[in-house]
Amino acid sequence: VSTRYLLLAEGSSGDPLYGKTMRGVLRYRREDVAAILDSTRAGETEDGVPVVGSVEEALPLGPTTALVGVVTQGGYFPPAWMELLHACVEQGLDVENGLHVFLGDDPELSALAEECGVELRDLRRPPAGLSTATGANLGVDATIVLTVGSDCAIGKMTVSVELDLEARRRGLRSIFVPTGQTGMVIAGWGIAVDAVVSDFLAGAAERLVVEGGDRGGELLWVEGQGALLHPVYSGVTLGLYHGSVPHLLVLCHESGRTQIEGAGGGPHPIPPLRDLVELHERFALPARPARVAAIALNTRALDEAQARAAIKAAEEEAGLPADDPVRFGAAKLVDAVLAAAP
Amino acid sequence: VSTRYLLLAEGSSGDPLYGKTMRGVLRYRREDVAAILDSTRAGETEDGVPVVGSVEEALPLGPTTALVGVVTQGGYFPPAWMELLHACVEQGLDVENGLHVFLGDDPELSALAEECGVELRDLRRPPAGLSTATGANLGVDATIVLTVGSDCAIGKMTVSVELDLEARRRGLRSIFVPTGQTGMVIAGWGIAVDAVVSDFLAGAAERLVVEGGDRGGELLWVEGQGALLHPVYSGVTLGLYHGSVPHLLVLCHESGRTQIEGAGGGPHPIPPLRDLVELHERFALPARPARVAAIALNTRALDEAQARAAIKAAEEEAGLPADDPVRFGAAKLVDAVLAAAP
Repeated sequence: VSTRYLLLAEGSSGDPLYGKTMRGVLRYRREDVAAILDSTRAGETEDGVPVVGSVEEALPLGPTTALVGVVTQGGYFPPAWMELLHACVEQGLDVENGLHVFLGDDPELSALAEECGVELRDLRRPPAGLSTATGANLGVDATIVLTVGSDCAIGKMTVSVELDLEARRRGLRSIFVPTGQTGMVIAGWGIAVDAVVSDFLAGAAERLVVEGGDRGGELLWVEGQGALLHPVYSGVTLGLYHGSVPHLLVLCHESGRTQIEGAGGGPHPIPPLRDLVELHERFALPARPARVAAIALNTRALDEAQARAAIKAAEEEAGLPADDPVRFGAAKLVDAVLAAAP
Repeated sequence: VSTRYLLLAEGSSGDPLYGKTMRGVLRYRREDVAAILDSTRAGETEDGVPVVGSVEEALPLGPTTALVGVVTQGGYFPPAWMELLHACVEQGLDVENGLHVFLGDDPELSALAEECGVELRDLRRPPAGLSTATGANLGVDATIVLTVGSDCAIGKMTVSVELDLEARRRGLRSIFVPTGQTGMVIAGWGIAVDAVVSDFLAGAAERLVVEGGDRGGELLWVEGQGALLHPVYSGVTLGLYHGSVPHLLVLCHESGRTQIEGAGGGPHPIPPLRDLVELHERFALPARPARVAAIALNTRALDEAQARAAIKAAEEEAGLPADDPVRFGAAKLVDAVLAAAP
């Protein structure tokens, strides 16, 4: 039986920030989504997918797997969710979870899952045998492209996926390398690097690019995380950067965003694009110099004329090709990456 | 009964890199050390402490606690060690361990410890309730000074401890803030930040400076980790930097070291001091600009005349006060920090 998802998004299926996983799956695996569960919007549809109010209501639609579709900061479970998860298990659904709290560590839910013959899959649980980086990353025979950004939740994963799809359409041996739970659901492999022990962060990133090479990739699109000047997540960003040893970077930015969002104690201003480009290139390891090849601009808040003007302004400011690959296609950015490839 | 350590350093008590914990404890808690266990050097002494060949041989010296005194890269236990740990437990010693592998997770050793009425303390086990940083770090009412460096294992912890001791001699409410297992043994509190889930790295650093403030510190010396351009550990370095929100940095460097050591796939050259100063200041959060106040130069490989010349050269190159606080005392560096304090 192939996977059919029931996306659990109770109370936040309409929230673009906290529904990141749901949105990613709807965008790239919509054919595998049976329904969305959000009792506050029951009876509506989202991107053509029915929204239901309870697990029972979803059953006629044939789901096999409940997927936790929201990401909370810090990754903890709202307590009320446990009841819902029990209901899913009781109805015979496997559960996939990308939060930091592992369902497999809950003795009650684990016992229930065993009793009901279903699986609890914790996407963020680090794989066995992780350790520190060894330098094997530098031996991967592929062009490695990492998305970096001015903030979280501006579309780094989406940009990586779109550029990979475009490169594959061109017949390149291109691979998307997932580093977070949503990317893992989309691609079916990967490691959530933000959940590994800090000392093993670069080691996890190294393992991912080595695996990308082993899978036959000549072009690896590594999903970026966080931002180098993010007060909360910068450690993840830098460990992923140095561990994935990219040759090229695609700098992602949301048009009009001037502050890092969701971090306390600010202000946390975002530097100008030109400074961000230089900052990122400056921070490459001497053993693997990296250049920013292009700017991916998220223009979701703008109308089309504004979007085109913003892209032109970004190109002038950064002195690099820029585009919104979701809105206008990924061709220009892939061209820029291929032109800059070593 | 106060703690009396048996330092376990089998086969590597003479190695300055892998015996970091042993060396730190010998330097700052020597009065609490009963013996060092290293069968390859049995009968010798190290800094006046007897080296013994077995647990049994150590018993007449009155140890209460066996401390794993070596740090291996990645923090795994050499398998032969487990036998030694069993012997310690059987002889009634508590065990303290700073490696990434937790002794408390070994069912056999845990059962034996319970049977023998001793405690297994895993120093790197993250405390309960860690989460992402909140911004509370920016509200700490103290001058925060972080040691940073050009590489690992060049003395960042030692510099932090020496500057704290000197500040306390001057009557300041000064506190050393431990971020690694050796510092934790020395000070009796702290979090090994390299062992926390990557997403919670800045959150752990934030908790430490908040606790330093709560302990009444007006001057917090935060133990640094890794290096910003270290291919293996840079994520830890940046997360600790942004999470501890230092006002001032003390840049540590070992005289004559030109390459980052112990990282595969190089070369991994260390940039010139002047570049390192600028790189670190550049990477401060806009919400908490940081300046490098001084250079701490480790001159252990030089004779005294060479050391003085190297310090002078470092001062000229970086345009900042420099000294070797272990060799020549910490007064000059503390003066520099106090002069630069906001």
